[in-house]
Amino acid sequence: MDEFQFIKHIEQNFYRQSTIRKGTGDDAAVFTQNYQETVVAKDMLVENVHFSRKTMEPFHIGYKGLAANISDLAAMGASPAFYLVGISIPPNWSIKEIEDIYNGFKAISNHYGMDLIGGDTVSGNELVLSVTVIGFVNKNRIRYRHLAKDGDVVFVTGHLGDSQAGLHLLTSATSMERFNDVDYFIHRHRMPTPRVKFSKAIETIPRVSLNDISDGLASEANEIAEASQVDIIIFDKKIPSHPSYNQFPLNDQKKWKYFGGEDFELLGTVSPSDWSKLEEAARISDTRLSKIGYVSDKKDRSGRVYLERTGQSRIQLKKEGYNHLSR
Amino acid sequence: MDEFQFIKHIEQNFYRQSTIRKGTGDDAAVFTQNYQETVVAKDMLVENVHFSRKTMEPFHIGYKGLAANISDLAAMGASPAFYLVGISIPPNWSIKEIEDIYNGFKAISNHYGMDLIGGDTVSGNELVLSVTVIGFVNKNRIRYRHLAKDGDVVFVTGHLGDSQAGLHLLTSATSMERFNDVDYFIHRHRMPTPRVKFSKAIETIPRVSLNDISDGLASEANEIAEASQVDIIIFDKKIPSHPSYNQFPLNDQKKWKYFGGEDFELLGTVSPSDWSKLEEAARISDTRLSKIGYVSDKKDRSGRVYLERTGQSRIQLKKEGYNHLSR
Repeated sequence: MDEFQFIKHIEQNFYRQSTIRKGTGDDAAVFTQNYQETVVAKDMLVENVHFSRKTMEPFHIGYKGLAANISDLAAMGASPAFYLVGISIPPNWSIKEIEDIYNGFKAISNHYGMDLIGGDTVSGNELVLSVTVIGFVNKNRIRYRHLAKDGDVVFVTGHLGDSQAGLHLLTSATSMERFNDVDYFIHRHRMPTPRVKFSKAIETIPRVSLNDISDGLASEANEIAEASQVDIIIFDKKIPSHPSYNQFPLNDQKKWKYFGGEDFELLGTVSPSDWSKLEEAARISDTRLSKIGYVSDKKDRSGRVYLERTGQSRIQLKKEGYNHLSR
Repeated sequence: MDEFQFIKHIEQNFYRQSTIRKGTGDDAAVFTQNYQETVVAKDMLVENVHFSRKTMEPFHIGYKGLAANISDLAAMGASPAFYLVGISIPPNWSIKEIEDIYNGFKAISNHYGMDLIGGDTVSGNELVLSVTVIGFVNKNRIRYRHLAKDGDVVFVTGHLGDSQAGLHLLTSATSMERFNDVDYFIHRHRMPTPRVKFSKAIETIPRVSLNDISDGLASEANEIAEASQVDIIIFDKKIPSHPSYNQFPLNDQKKWKYFGGEDFELLGTVSPSDWSKLEEAARISDTRLSKIGYVSDKKDRSGRVYLERTGQSRIQLKKEGYNHLSR
């Protein structure tokens, strides 16, 4: 199978999105939009940096690679519509395995009715995936991270630390039989759920600041605090984790829930007067929702995040997420 | 410099495009559009497959990488507006060299008033660039390759074969002193000009089928013929080349102008009644324009391309462009 044949093979036969004018098959894709804003995000994934065949099947690599980008759209309040994939394929990957990556893309894109509208397929020495996603959002419902205000409630969806717990189980030398809910944690690592349903369900609320947790709670909370120039206080005890999470070493528990990342949950802030609407949105979208802190209304704010611990002094929670470029 | 610092460093301080709502600095970029169509293209470039440091400075790699994508927009009739860059950086590339790649992006994006609105910076074992470009076009002026019709004039901009001639000069063992216009050919290889000005100048013409020559004349002409289900006849003698082009070995001349690619000229077809408008557009955009053939009006068409040679029989010109995935 050469490049042209492979591209023909992965092309969609029909498109679901009504705004599409031209998908694959010309110099570029074309879509239309006349009342919503267009949202675009792009991620780059490199084998053995962002994923490994030791812990992920090719299907999971595709699934999670697109999930991470859809999560970015959800964090802006946007509905996912289109995606484009650039892939650099090394000789040690078979066409079958590459197809399985695309099967992963298809599985999650089908779930959200997204269309593959373009991309590029090339040869290289290591597997690199580049995913571009496009979505749409109403103008007055864009969920910027700079929208947090004094006195806001700070919330998070789902459980934190799951993804790193799953990775730990997949790479740990100790027997998995020691652990409970192994499948749950591994599934959360390999096939995370971008919180699109929740993000759409909160459309009734005019102002929400929102980030998705790709780089860990500490990093994302600091981004909201910095962008909004507010101080955020998080109650350590309120950070939600899975009932079996306490089976892991205490130090790992802390590391994963503060700095672990890749949970792709949503972290945000809303006015206390909109809290009941948020709870209703969580209920109708079947999403776990936790109030984990508040935005300080003190005057001497400086764009920082603090962690409030029972019986201990308040400490600053610094931005220390994943950082793949470490030189 | 870590990832966060580097991203801060390459971020734009201001945006030129009036449709931008949010560039870098959140989970995704946001732009608005209410009367034009949005056009999006994506390319992937791998070191030693698509470019080499032996023949290109880092600046040229960035410049040409974005030029190739802008050329795709021009081939759809679209005005370039935004771009996003994914980059995987290996340890043997310095931050200075990576900056120079971005300087190449900036040089050409400034020329077209484009804004860098997002991307991703990661570490890998080989340099991989992924460029996504976004542009806008009026609904009834999209230049699809399926728009060619019987009796159309076939045209091409600029000179063909220049890019491969430049590469030949950069890699040839023989002394460059033997050749004329060395700088011209090398410049055309390293810093090609996407034909945006011409593409915009032909906006008065309702129907134009258009492809950019990234994979060679033969490949692009076949794409138009197949997509439009027409036969295209090209006069070998009419294929435009630089006055010094005949200094290269005859076999190379043929290979480069038919199959060479990367000239990023535009190949298209228009109704004979619009030819004078096309000439006027070429004049005002200062673009060389050549009539190189016609679309057959015979009934037994089959989506093929034929080459008409003086004193020789007509032969089929098959699609054999670059194909980087050769397995």
